[in-house]
Amino acid sequence: MNSRIRLDYNNLMTDRLGAYGISQAGLEAAGKAAVQASQWFHARRAAGKMDFFDLPDTPEHLNSCLKLAAKYKGKFDDLVVLGIGGSALGTTAIHSALNPSTYNLQDKKARRGRPRLWVLDNVDPEKLKAVLALLKAKRTLVNLISKSGATAETSAQFLWIRQWLMKDAGKNWSKNMVVTTDPAGGILRQIVDREKLSSLDVPSGVGGRFSVLTPVGLFPLAMAGVDIKSLLEGANQMRKMTLNENPWKNPARLYALTQFLLYQKGCRINVMMSYSDSLYPMTDWFRQLWAESLGKRVNNQNQTVETGPTPVKALGATDQHSQLQLYIEGPRDKAITFLMVEKFRSDITIPRAYPKIADISYLGGKSFGQLLNSEARATALALSKNGRPNCSFLIPEISPRTVGQLVFLLETATAYAGGLFGINPMDQPGVEEGKRYTYGLMGRAGFENRKAEAEKFEAGNSSRYVV
Amino acid sequence: MNSRIRLDYNNLMTDRLGAYGISQAGLEAAGKAAVQASQWFHARRAAGKMDFFDLPDTPEHLNSCLKLAAKYKGKFDDLVVLGIGGSALGTTAIHSALNPSTYNLQDKKARRGRPRLWVLDNVDPEKLKAVLALLKAKRTLVNLISKSGATAETSAQFLWIRQWLMKDAGKNWSKNMVVTTDPAGGILRQIVDREKLSSLDVPSGVGGRFSVLTPVGLFPLAMAGVDIKSLLEGANQMRKMTLNENPWKNPARLYALTQFLLYQKGCRINVMMSYSDSLYPMTDWFRQLWAESLGKRVNNQNQTVETGPTPVKALGATDQHSQLQLYIEGPRDKAITFLMVEKFRSDITIPRAYPKIADISYLGGKSFGQLLNSEARATALALSKNGRPNCSFLIPEISPRTVGQLVFLLETATAYAGGLFGINPMDQPGVEEGKRYTYGLMGRAGFENRKAEAEKFEAGNSSRYVV
Repeated sequence: MNSRIRLDYNNLMTDRLGAYGISQAGLEAAGKAAVQASQWFHARRAAGKMDFFDLPDTPEHLNSCLKLAAKYKGKFDDLVVLGIGGSALGTTAIHSALNPSTYNLQDKKARRGRPRLWVLDNVDPEKLKAVLALLKAKRTLVNLISKSGATAETSAQFLWIRQWLMKDAGKNWSKNMVVTTDPAGGILRQIVDREKLSSLDVPSGVGGRFSVLTPVGLFPLAMAGVDIKSLLEGANQMRKMTLNENPWKNPARLYALTQFLLYQKGCRINVMMSYSDSLYPMTDWFRQLWAESLGKRVNNQNQTVETGPTPVKALGATDQHSQLQLYIEGPRDKAITFLMVEKFRSDITIPRAYPKIADISYLGGKSFGQLLNSEARATALALSKNGRPNCSFLIPEISPRTVGQLVFLLETATAYAGGLFGINPMDQPGVEEGKRYTYGLMGRAGFENRKAEAEKFEAGNSSRYVV
Repeated sequence: MNSRIRLDYNNLMTDRLGAYGISQAGLEAAGKAAVQASQWFHARRAAGKMDFFDLPDTPEHLNSCLKLAAKYKGKFDDLVVLGIGGSALGTTAIHSALNPSTYNLQDKKARRGRPRLWVLDNVDPEKLKAVLALLKAKRTLVNLISKSGATAETSAQFLWIRQWLMKDAGKNWSKNMVVTTDPAGGILRQIVDREKLSSLDVPSGVGGRFSVLTPVGLFPLAMAGVDIKSLLEGANQMRKMTLNENPWKNPARLYALTQFLLYQKGCRINVMMSYSDSLYPMTDWFRQLWAESLGKRVNNQNQTVETGPTPVKALGATDQHSQLQLYIEGPRDKAITFLMVEKFRSDITIPRAYPKIADISYLGGKSFGQLLNSEARATALALSKNGRPNCSFLIPEISPRTVGQLVFLLETATAYAGGLFGINPMDQPGVEEGKRYTYGLMGRAGFENRKAEAEKFEAGNSSRYVV
């Protein structure tokens, strides 16, 4: 069996979709744009603005994480990750892909002595309280993750969990915390120094949503027993492929290019539909990568473009009974990417029974894996026949290596797509304004005028428009 | 405190958004279409095609579910729901809203003796195996749910779990199963009769995605300790409001109308963003309701329209760090609906610390609920200032009653929206073709030509388009 993932984009092409598809000529004609995007990418890389790209080839983070995870091995029953966005989504995605969905419900033996893993990426008090009620402070390691160190949600979580640890451990609370943050700047680094906390580095040149292969993801994943060495090897294998300047051999480039061409044709919604429960959270991680990187008001010439595809997550076969009706018959504004697993790590044979009931007896002797893959094939065919563009990432089997490939492919494709869209895929200027209003409403000094503005805005609400 | 949910749509109007909003005049001008949609709705209702609408006023299902749940009380450690789409999403949504996120991790005492709840709505063998490894057959009740009885996924699950029960209980396996299906037709009803299984009815006139307030949802929710009587009372309270022919007093009508008008203005993506972890799965349930009901190729005059908004789920504050950049700066193709909780069932005060570090000290003394709601308000303001339409369902507190209101409001709004879009919101013709290909690929008799067609299609794949 092929040990690497492949992209099958037959069902994006005119051969399959007629006028709704991309023609071979169109793909070749876009070659120039693709070459420019590639040159732009490598120029940015040379300028130190694409540091994520060299992470798989950097042993430093692997070593620091393995070392720290070895130090803590067997010492904790629970690991709580406090972080949001890029500090949480990648860890959840890879943990879900490589550990059983029941991981936190298993007994310690089944978990091979690893701690349960709780990624708390929101500030809903009901949820936070419910989780903490299950944990014992002395047996809990907290991994606080924030690149800037100033994320309001993570700061609030820090104050809360620090008090909780203190109640149990007094001054020794700091032994139960590892902070992952910028190596030099930010208030979290100040706090690390002051409280003498263990810490790990997020490299300065790697943005949050591209940071899963830094200690942001590597440390908690190592603690949860994920083979992070193989994960990085898989990523490095894909890295070599994505350096291939022959565009027909470079899956990251082809994925970015085809999605870009479809966007020009009106497919502004990119559905990623996983035919695997364990890869479903990967679509959530990708959603941040794609939306935050490509959703931009201005292009690199500072012209207003208001561009960017909207990523949507979906799960097969489940969403065949929820979203497929819309995908097949609704507006032609979608391109669908399947995540298809060729061989499941374990399968179940469907027992034979009720030989005289035709509606059910045909299933006996087949397997669940076969059923799930038949559904995926049938969905791809039905979409194609209806002129709906779809492509597939074919994953031989879910493993640290193939997951590393997939993660790196999608990161690189996102960066390339930034070049094609002509925008900066590494910033997120649009979210700053909302943060300032939050500071204002939370009474932070220096943001009083924001508070006043927000209150004035809300006071202007008309009761006429409330029902 | 107000005991009912309200819709605040100030931030959809021109007063707030300028040309990107809906004007008061535009809303009034659309009044005629709204009246027609309402007449259409009630005519369909009179014709027995909107039976979901009278469910809150029907004590029969409540009684049958309470009775059966009482019979089983204390007898099982685990309840496994086997179903997909409308047989699963509503149960998950309401369970998540009203029970703690850690429900399955709590000990039995904390669960007040109720069984753990597993809603298995997919056929991924890795997931199915992992869950079953945690259960004991003798102490497990299985609730098999399929309206038609012919759903391939649910049939396969039935054969599998029946064998598992038999291994432990022999011929008594049937005592551990309750089937929820059509009262008269379908193969599951045949199997119920033959195996003498307990059963509950899905009323013939209620489609899967509108069935959560039938035994489809009510029975498993009652087993998990949800107060289904109050849930239905809340739904009935909303039912009375949605019968109000004064459109300004009818939140279902106003929600449908405003979303419809925004669709005409190019907002073809409807984001539902929950500022509560426990309401997040509600957005998944709504996603089915909205997509499958409104995503249609033809209108009621059988003209090709290929219409329907694309629902997207999001979670605040988490997705402020993932999707908000796109919502604020990307294409103006989105309308956002917030689910906002005014008072959390429990809150946490953020401890005071580090008085000299301004980046963090402002949080001390505030609460997490306050932080989450400040983020929601800040996001609504930032979106509005950027001309991005947004509205909010204001939920006084999450309770069986308010959840019942919300569910019923959204169901009715979906049906009304069908009237405005001029399509049939109750069918799903687009998914049948894919099912036939699945039957073919799974070797079901009578579908050999579908298999041949699928294999021919795949044989036509060009290796040129695989990388």
